[in-house]
Amino acid sequence: MKYGIVIFPSKPVQDEINSYRKRYDPHYAMIPPHLTLKEAFEVDDAKITELITELKHIANETEPFDLAVNKVSTFAPVTNTIYLKVEPIQQLYDLAEKMQSGKFPANQMYSYVPHITIAQKLSQDEYSDVYGSLSMKDTRLEDQIDRFHLVYQLDNGIWTVYESFVFGKEYV
Amino acid sequence: MKYGIVIFPSKPVQDEINSYRKRYDPHYAMIPPHLTLKEAFEVDDAKITELITELKHIANETEPFDLAVNKVSTFAPVTNTIYLKVEPIQQLYDLAEKMQSGKFPANQMYSYVPHITIAQKLSQDEYSDVYGSLSMKDTRLEDQIDRFHLVYQLDNGIWTVYESFVFGKEYV
Repeated sequence: MKYGIVIFPSKPVQDEINSYRKRYDPHYAMIPPHLTLKEAFEVDDAKITELITELKHIANETEPFDLAVNKVSTFAPVTNTIYLKVEPIQQLYDLAEKMQSGKFPANQMYSYVPHITIAQKLSQDEYSDVYGSLSMKDTRLEDQIDRFHLVYQLDNGIWTVYESFVFGKEYV
Repeated sequence: MKYGIVIFPSKPVQDEINSYRKRYDPHYAMIPPHLTLKEAFEVDDAKITELITELKHIANETEPFDLAVNKVSTFAPVTNTIYLKVEPIQQLYDLAEKMQSGKFPANQMYSYVPHITIAQKLSQDEYSDVYGSLSMKDTRLEDQIDRFHLVYQLDNGIWTVYESFVFGKEYV
């Protein structure tokens, strides 16, 4: 089964991010606004049980932290994805790193860039227009994060949550 | 904020149920296939914190159980919703009952009927056609359930998972 690990911001922040995604992100209906900690990976049932125990340990070792967005950025020219750049804080890198080592499959192809996608799969012309107009907007957001979620993908492409991991609150 | 409490069946069962929902359920993209334990209710942040502790206790008191679907049924003439009738087992009624009493707001308007919706908001003609054809299909499904999820609704109508509650595994 195909799994991923994400952080969902709080509802007010998700609602604001959706106002952009609704127009520019074809994955809008596939998953709520999210910050990816670990990109999609394939594992079987036995392995995921093992990884869930690891994820509980990781959650218990993590303190709640503040997340801040100050500007829009882009992965162009690699892809023309436009995203909210999440201020680089150590906790996010630590989380992503722990999910690439030990019992976890290493599946990170590029350096980890904490971000929340708001536009993707645009044509080149659309991309230029949208990036130009989003860059001029005030996209500052702040949030408190105290959990992450293990999600899996259904055949129709939509992601379902399997389990939540609340920092300092997991029973192992 | 508006919350609900649901059970998501396993991926193979969700995929099969989605094959019906895709055609007949306008809520298809709003939430994955689910069995509702407690319908949408409004509570503030302080109250939900209190209810989460209750939900952990409830999860810890519950043993994993088997869920079976044997036929299609309908809420007509109250609404023309068509659903997979979940075999009535005590655990489901106990869960639903606990989420209506104690600290929980009582918001259950009808007797609890364990079901998974596959079609709704159809015109009367569509309803008759769809119910006729679904009634003749073999819709038997079996699954093992070991958790439920607290979900909340975004402004765009899509539901996000806030927290999972795994039977016998919650730290209170």
